[in-house]
Amino acid sequence: MPYEPINLADKFERLTEQWSPRVVAEMNDYQFKVVRVQGDFVWHDHPETDETFLVLEGELRIDFRDGAVRLRAGELFVVPKGVEHKPCAEGEVKLMLIEPRGVVNTGEAGGERTAENDLWI
Amino acid sequence: MPYEPINLADKFERLTEQWSPRVVAEMNDYQFKVVRVQGDFVWHDHPETDETFLVLEGELRIDFRDGAVRLRAGELFVVPKGVEHKPCAEGEVKLMLIEPRGVVNTGEAGGERTAENDLWI
Repeated sequence: MPYEPINLADKFERLTEQWSPRVVAEMNDYQFKVVRVQGDFVWHDHPETDETFLVLEGELRIDFRDGAVRLRAGELFVVPKGVEHKPCAEGEVKLMLIEPRGVVNTGEAGGERTAENDLWI
Repeated sequence: MPYEPINLADKFERLTEQWSPRVVAEMNDYQFKVVRVQGDFVWHDHPETDETFLVLEGELRIDFRDGAVRLRAGELFVVPKGVEHKPCAEGEVKLMLIEPRGVVNTGEAGGERTAENDLWI
């Protein structure tokens, strides 16, 4: 049987659109998603689940109502469920999101920045 | 409130022992673990859960009964639940494991290679 590694750099080469997470793998009911981001996102939260950010390239700031965290390549952060956050990136950032299947990028906030969910690459 | 990134390189600097996974973060009931491996592990499986390997440095081969996959830095693979596998590394490999809390490194196989579970770093 053929077993193929999932190469994150290859996935990013095929993903040109920003703020559009694409699933690369599933583990039980969780998904690994790659996403390119730049600029400010919207304030939102995920009332049902934590959400993990792992930065692969660039620098990401995640704002909270009472602080912020800066993530560089090789750094991760788990945003606890129900905590409002706003990702911001001055330059383009390549990151991996890890979260349960079905989580929408804008959480409960909705709006025009909501990306189609469960797209694979 | 202070928000601190989890820097994987820093975690590996503090982890000298091989084959001894250490938890660096939790997302819901899942854990992110760093581990250094070198040489051959034992055949085992995890009947209750998938298990994700993300290689950060070095080259890891995961043998299956009917094939194998080779993972280099920036590559990941999800071993499906119940599938027997044996990680092997010629040189030292730094990797991150992602799996539910409570998963033991040797799965159902047990034996002397079983590491203490739920150790943090």
